Amino acid sequence: MTDDRAKAVQDFYPDDVAHCYGCGRLNPLGLHLQSRREGDEMVARFVPRPEHTALPGFVYGGLVASLIDCHAMGTAAAAAERAQGREIGEGPAPRFVTASLRVDYLAPTPHGPALEVRARAVEVGERKVVVHATVTAGGATTARGEVVAVRMPASMARAR
Amino acid sequence: MTDDRAKAVQDFYPDDVAHCYGCGRLNPLGLHLQSRREGDEMVARFVPRPEHTALPGFVYGGLVASLIDCHAMGTAAAAAERAQGREIGEGPAPRFVTASLRVDYLAPTPHGPALEVRARAVEVGERKVVVHATVTAGGATTARGEVVAVRMPASMARAR
Repeated sequence: MTDDRAKAVQDFYPDDVAHCYGCGRLNPLGLHLQSRREGDEMVARFVPRPEHTALPGFVYGGLVASLIDCHAMGTAAAAAERAQGREIGEGPAPRFVTASLRVDYLAPTPHGPALEVRARAVEVGERKVVVHATVTAGGATTARGEVVAVRMPASMARAR
Repeated sequence: MTDDRAKAVQDFYPDDVAHCYGCGRLNPLGLHLQSRREGDEMVARFVPRPEHTALPGFVYGGLVASLIDCHAMGTAAAAAERAQGREIGEGPAPRFVTASLRVDYLAPTPHGPALEVRARAVEVGERKVVVHATVTAGGATTARGEVVAVRMPASMARAR
Protein backbone atom coordinates (compact mmCIF):
# COMPACT_ATOMS: atom_id res chain seq x y z
CA MET A 1 0.00 0.00 0.00
CA THR A 2 1.05 3.55 -0.54
CA ASP A 3 2.19 5.39 2.52
CA ASP A 4 0.09 8.54 2.24
CA ARG A 5 2.35 10.19 4.77
CA ALA A 6 5.21 10.09 2.26
CA LYS A 7 5.80 13.43 0.61
CA ALA A 8 4.11 14.01 -2.74
CA VAL A 9 6.41 15.24 -5.50
CA GLN A 10 3.82 17.73 -6.70
CA ASP A 11 3.85 19.55 -3.35
CA PHE A 12 7.43 20.53 -4.11
CA TYR A 13 7.09 21.85 -7.65
CA PRO A 14 7.92 25.57 -7.59
CA ASP A 15 4.82 27.78 -7.55
CA ASP A 16 5.30 29.03 -11.10
CA VAL A 17 5.18 25.51 -12.54
CA ALA A 18 2.47 24.02 -10.29
CA HIS A 19 -0.58 24.61 -12.50
CA CYS A 20 -0.73 21.34 -14.41
CA TYR A 21 -4.30 20.20 -15.03
CA GLY A 22 -3.37 16.65 -14.10
CA CYS A 23 -1.23 17.21 -11.04
CA GLY A 24 -0.69 20.88 -10.23
CA ARG A 25 -1.63 21.86 -6.70
CA LEU A 26 -2.40 25.40 -7.93
CA ASN A 27 -4.91 24.36 -10.62
CA PRO A 28 -8.28 24.74 -8.87
CA LEU A 29 -10.12 22.64 -11.46
CA GLY A 30 -7.43 20.02 -11.98
CA LEU A 31 -7.13 16.38 -11.02
CA HIS A 32 -4.49 16.89 -8.30
CA LEU A 33 -2.68 13.62 -8.81
CA GLN A 34 -0.05 13.03 -6.15
CA SER A 35 2.98 10.80 -6.63
CA ARG A 36 4.71 9.33 -3.61
CA ARG A 37 7.71 7.10 -3.17
CA GLU A 38 7.31 3.50 -2.08
CA GLY A 39 10.71 1.84 -2.14
CA ASP A 40 12.01 1.82 -5.69
CA GLU A 41 8.62 2.67 -7.12
CA MET A 42 6.45 5.74 -7.18
CA VAL A 43 2.74 5.31 -6.53
CA ALA A 44 -0.33 7.47 -7.11
CA ARG A 45 -3.98 6.73 -6.54
CA PHE A 46 -6.91 8.33 -8.27
CA VAL A 47 -10.65 7.81 -8.15
CA PRO A 48 -12.12 8.72 -11.57
CA ARG A 49 -14.95 11.22 -11.50
CA PRO A 50 -18.37 10.02 -12.70
CA GLU A 51 -17.88 11.85 -16.02
CA HIS A 52 -14.57 10.09 -16.74
CA THR A 53 -16.20 7.36 -18.77
CA ALA A 54 -15.17 5.80 -22.07
CA LEU A 55 -18.14 3.54 -22.55
CA PRO A 56 -20.57 3.19 -19.65
CA GLY A 57 -18.88 1.24 -16.84
CA PHE A 58 -15.33 1.86 -18.06
CA VAL A 59 -12.75 4.56 -17.46
CA TYR A 60 -11.88 7.06 -20.18
CA GLY A 61 -8.62 6.08 -21.88
CA GLY A 62 -7.52 9.69 -22.12
CA LEU A 63 -7.70 9.90 -18.33
CA VAL A 64 -5.59 6.75 -18.01
CA ALA A 65 -3.02 8.31 -20.35
CA SER A 66 -3.13 11.58 -18.39
CA LEU A 67 -2.52 9.83 -15.06
CA ILE A 68 0.41 7.89 -16.52
CA ASP A 69 1.82 11.10 -17.99
CA CYS A 70 1.69 13.18 -14.81
CA HIS A 71 2.84 10.35 -12.59
CA ALA A 72 5.77 9.73 -14.92
CA MET A 73 6.85 13.36 -14.60
CA GLY A 74 6.75 13.00 -10.82
CA THR A 75 8.66 9.74 -11.04
CA ALA A 76 11.30 11.41 -13.21
CA ALA A 77 11.64 14.24 -10.70
CA ALA A 78 12.09 11.82 -7.81
CA ALA A 79 14.62 9.77 -9.79
CA ALA A 80 16.59 12.87 -10.75
CA GLU A 81 16.69 13.97 -7.13
CA ARG A 82 17.82 10.56 -5.91
CA ALA A 83 20.55 10.53 -8.56
CA GLN A 84 21.82 13.70 -6.88
CA GLY A 85 21.62 12.17 -3.43
CA ARG A 86 18.42 13.93 -2.42
CA GLU A 87 14.90 12.74 -1.66
CA ILE A 88 11.61 14.46 -2.44
CA GLY A 89 10.93 17.12 0.17
CA GLU A 90 14.55 18.11 0.64
CA GLY A 91 14.20 20.97 -1.85
CA PRO A 92 12.18 22.12 -4.84
CA ALA A 93 11.31 19.21 -7.16
CA PRO A 94 12.77 19.47 -10.66
CA ARG A 95 10.15 19.95 -13.36
CA PHE A 96 10.11 17.53 -16.26
CA VAL A 97 7.92 17.65 -19.36
CA THR A 98 6.81 14.87 -21.66
CA ALA A 99 8.75 14.14 -24.83
CA SER A 100 6.79 11.01 -25.69
CA LEU A 101 4.05 8.92 -24.18
CA ARG A 102 3.03 5.42 -25.10
CA VAL A 103 0.13 3.61 -23.50
CA ASP A 104 -0.93 0.03 -24.18
CA TYR A 105 -4.47 -0.65 -23.07
CA LEU A 106 -4.41 -4.26 -21.92
CA ALA A 107 -8.02 -4.50 -20.81
CA PRO A 108 -10.94 -2.14 -20.25
CA THR A 109 -10.48 -0.28 -16.94
CA PRO A 110 -13.56 -0.70 -14.75
CA HIS A 111 -15.09 2.54 -13.47
CA GLY A 112 -15.53 2.51 -9.72
CA PRO A 113 -12.44 1.37 -7.86
CA ALA A 114 -9.52 3.69 -7.17
CA LEU A 115 -6.87 3.37 -9.85
CA GLU A 116 -3.34 2.72 -8.72
CA VAL A 117 -0.56 4.03 -10.92
CA ARG A 118 2.88 2.58 -10.25
CA ALA A 119 6.02 3.64 -12.00
CA ARG A 120 9.76 3.36 -11.93
CA ALA A 121 12.54 5.13 -13.74
CA VAL A 122 14.36 2.66 -15.97
CA GLU A 123 16.89 5.13 -17.38
CA VAL A 124 18.05 8.26 -15.57
CA GLY A 125 20.14 10.78 -17.46
CA GLU A 126 21.01 14.41 -16.81
CA ARG A 127 18.33 15.68 -19.12
CA LYS A 128 16.19 12.65 -19.91
CA VAL A 129 14.47 10.03 -17.78
CA VAL A 130 12.59 7.01 -19.13
CA VAL A 131 9.71 5.77 -16.99
CA HIS A 132 7.69 2.56 -17.09
CA ALA A 133 4.25 2.60 -15.50
CA THR A 134 1.24 0.40 -14.90
CA VAL A 135 -2.35 1.17 -14.01
CA THR A 136 -4.31 -1.30 -11.93
CA ALA A 137 -7.98 -1.29 -10.97
CA GLY A 138 -9.33 -3.70 -8.40
CA GLY A 139 -6.08 -5.65 -8.56
CA ALA A 140 -6.01 -6.13 -12.35
CA THR A 141 -3.46 -4.35 -14.50
CA THR A 142 -5.36 -2.64 -17.30
CA ALA A 143 -2.75 -0.38 -18.90
CA ARG A 144 0.98 -0.12 -19.28
CA GLY A 145 2.89 3.02 -20.17
CA GLU A 146 6.33 4.10 -21.31
CA VAL A 147 7.11 7.76 -21.01
CA VAL A 148 10.16 9.79 -21.96
CA ALA A 149 10.53 12.79 -19.67
CA VAL A 150 12.92 15.66 -20.32
CA ARG A 151 13.89 18.58 -18.15
CA MET A 152 11.62 21.54 -18.75
CA PRO A 153 13.26 23.70 -21.40
CA ALA A 154 14.01 27.32 -20.52
CA SER A 155 11.63 28.36 -23.31
CA MET A 156 8.72 27.11 -21.21
CA ALA A 157 9.53 29.28 -18.22
CA ARG A 158 6.76 31.73 -17.54
CA ALA A 159 7.05 35.06 -19.31
CA ARG A 160 6.88 37.79 -16.69
CA MET B 1 -10.42 24.54 -43.33
CA THR B 2 -12.85 22.07 -41.87
CA ASP B 3 -16.31 22.15 -43.32
CA ASP B 4 -18.35 22.34 -40.13
CA ARG B 5 -21.42 21.35 -42.10
CA ALA B 6 -19.90 17.90 -42.67
CA LYS B 7 -21.39 15.28 -40.42
CA ALA B 8 -19.51 14.54 -37.19
CA VAL B 9 -18.79 10.87 -36.52
CA GLN B 10 -19.73 11.22 -32.87
CA ASP B 11 -23.28 12.25 -33.75
CA PHE B 12 -23.76 8.77 -35.17
CA TYR B 13 -22.43 6.65 -32.32
CA PRO B 14 -25.33 4.60 -30.94
CA ASP B 15 -26.82 6.09 -27.77
CA ASP B 16 -25.50 3.37 -25.49
CA VAL B 17 -21.87 4.08 -26.47
CA ALA B 18 -22.03 7.88 -26.71
CA HIS B 19 -20.85 8.79 -23.20
CA CYS B 20 -17.13 9.18 -23.81
CA TYR B 21 -15.62 11.99 -21.75
CA GLY B 22 -13.62 13.18 -24.72
CA CYS B 23 -16.18 12.95 -27.49
CA GLY B 24 -19.50 11.54 -26.34
CA ARG B 25 -22.48 13.74 -27.13
CA LEU B 26 -24.31 12.26 -24.10
CA ASN B 27 -21.59 13.15 -21.56
CA PRO B 28 -22.79 16.47 -20.10
CA LEU B 29 -19.40 17.31 -18.59
CA GLY B 30 -17.26 16.02 -21.45
CA LEU B 31 -15.17 17.74 -24.09
CA HIS B 32 -17.50 16.98 -27.01
CA LEU B 33 -14.81 16.61 -29.64
CA GLN B 34 -16.28 16.26 -33.13
CA SER B 35 -14.49 14.59 -36.02
CA ARG B 36 -15.45 15.46 -39.57
CA ARG B 37 -14.25 14.28 -42.94
CA GLU B 38 -12.23 16.55 -45.17
CA GLY B 39 -11.15 14.61 -48.23
CA ASP B 40 -8.90 11.76 -47.15
CA GLU B 41 -8.39 13.25 -43.73
CA MET B 42 -10.52 13.66 -40.65
CA VAL B 43 -10.37 16.97 -38.81
CA ALA B 44 -11.43 18.13 -35.36
CA ARG B 45 -11.01 21.46 -33.66
CA PHE B 46 -10.90 22.14 -29.97
CA VAL B 47 -10.33 25.24 -27.87
CA PRO B 48 -8.71 24.20 -24.57
CA ARG B 49 -10.45 25.39 -21.43
CA PRO B 50 -8.55 27.81 -19.18
CA GLU B 51 -7.78 24.98 -16.74
CA HIS B 52 -6.21 22.79 -19.43
CA THR B 53 -2.69 24.01 -18.70
CA ALA B 54 0.56 22.10 -18.41
CA LEU B 55 2.78 24.98 -17.41
CA PRO B 56 1.30 28.47 -17.59
CA GLY B 57 0.83 29.43 -21.23
CA PHE B 58 0.93 25.88 -22.56
CA VAL B 59 -1.68 23.20 -23.15
CA TYR B 60 -1.84 20.12 -20.92
CA GLY B 61 -0.21 17.15 -22.64
CA GLY B 62 -2.85 14.79 -21.32
CA LEU B 63 -5.46 16.83 -23.15
CA VAL B 64 -3.43 16.64 -26.36
CA ALA B 65 -3.25 12.85 -25.93
CA SER B 66 -6.99 12.70 -25.22
CA LEU B 67 -7.89 14.67 -28.35
CA ILE B 68 -5.66 12.46 -30.49
CA ASP B 69 -7.20 9.37 -28.91
CA CYS B 70 -10.84 10.33 -29.46
CA HIS B 71 -10.24 11.74 -32.91
CA ALA B 72 -8.43 8.53 -33.89
CA MET B 73 -11.47 6.47 -32.85
CA GLY B 74 -13.64 8.69 -35.04
CA THR B 75 -11.17 8.39 -37.88
CA ALA B 76 -11.18 4.61 -37.54
CA ALA B 77 -14.98 4.58 -37.63
CA ALA B 78 -15.07 6.71 -40.79
CA ALA B 79 -12.41 4.55 -42.45
CA ALA B 80 -14.25 1.35 -41.56
CA GLU B 81 -17.44 2.77 -43.01
CA ARG B 82 -15.75 3.87 -46.21
CA ALA B 83 -14.16 0.42 -46.56
CA GLN B 84 -17.74 -0.88 -46.63
CA GLY B 85 -18.82 1.68 -49.19
CA ARG B 86 -20.60 3.93 -46.74
CA GLU B 87 -19.96 7.47 -45.48
CA ILE B 88 -20.55 8.86 -42.00
CA GLY B 89 -24.20 9.72 -41.57
CA GLU B 90 -25.49 6.85 -43.64
CA GLY B 91 -26.02 4.68 -40.58
CA PRO B 92 -24.79 4.18 -37.01
CA ALA B 93 -21.03 4.75 -36.73
CA PRO B 94 -19.03 1.71 -35.64
CA ARG B 95 -17.46 2.06 -32.21
CA PHE B 96 -13.74 1.50 -31.86
CA VAL B 97 -11.66 1.48 -28.69
CA THR B 98 -7.99 2.19 -28.18
CA ALA B 99 -5.49 -0.66 -28.11
CA SER B 100 -2.45 1.59 -28.01
CA LEU B 101 -1.68 5.27 -28.14
CA ARG B 102 1.64 6.92 -28.83
CA VAL B 103 2.15 10.65 -28.74
CA ASP B 104 5.35 12.49 -29.58
CA TYR B 105 5.38 16.02 -28.23
CA LEU B 106 7.36 17.98 -30.80
CA ALA B 107 7.05 21.39 -29.18
CA PRO B 108 5.08 22.96 -26.34
CA THR B 109 1.49 23.64 -27.47
CA PRO B 110 0.58 27.28 -26.87
CA HIS B 111 -2.59 27.85 -24.84
CA GLY B 112 -5.01 30.18 -26.62
CA PRO B 113 -5.55 29.26 -30.27
CA ALA B 114 -7.94 26.53 -31.31
CA LEU B 115 -6.13 23.23 -31.75
CA GLU B 116 -6.60 21.42 -35.02
CA VAL B 117 -6.33 17.65 -34.94
CA ARG B 118 -5.89 15.97 -38.31
CA ALA B 119 -5.78 12.26 -38.85
CA ARG B 120 -5.84 9.59 -41.48
CA ALA B 121 -6.18 5.83 -41.36
CA VAL B 122 -2.98 4.25 -42.64
CA GLU B 123 -4.09 0.64 -42.21
CA VAL B 124 -7.70 -0.50 -42.32
CA GLY B 125 -8.52 -4.07 -41.33
CA GLU B 126 -11.74 -5.80 -40.33
CA ARG B 127 -11.01 -5.48 -36.66
CA LYS B 128 -8.06 -3.10 -36.43
CA VAL B 129 -7.37 0.35 -37.85
CA VAL B 130 -4.08 2.23 -37.48
CA VAL B 131 -4.35 6.01 -37.42
CA HIS B 132 -1.73 8.74 -37.75
CA ALA B 133 -2.58 12.16 -36.33
CA THR B 134 -1.12 15.61 -35.85
CA VAL B 135 -2.04 18.49 -33.58
CA THR B 136 -1.40 22.04 -34.74
CA ALA B 137 -1.80 25.30 -32.86
CA GLY B 138 -1.57 28.60 -34.66
CA GLY B 139 -0.20 26.82 -37.72
CA ALA B 140 2.63 24.97 -35.96
CA THR B 141 2.52 21.21 -35.51
CA THR B 142 3.18 20.52 -31.86
CA ALA B 143 2.35 16.81 -31.49
CA ARG B 144 2.15 13.70 -33.57
CA GLY B 145 0.24 10.56 -32.69
CA GLU B 146 -0.05 6.95 -33.74
CA VAL B 147 -3.07 5.08 -32.48
CA VAL B 148 -4.17 1.49 -32.88
CA ALA B 149 -7.95 1.25 -32.80
CA VAL B 150 -9.86 -2.01 -32.48
CA ARG B 151 -13.56 -2.76 -32.75
CA MET B 152 -15.25 -2.50 -29.38
CA PRO B 153 -15.27 -6.00 -27.87
CA ALA B 154 -18.61 -7.50 -26.94
CA SER B 155 -17.44 -7.58 -23.30
CA MET B 156 -17.67 -3.80 -23.22
CA ALA B 157 -21.32 -3.69 -24.21
CA ARG B 158 -23.43 -2.17 -21.49
CA ALA B 159 -24.83 -4.61 -18.96
CA ARG B 160 -28.59 -4.16 -18.84
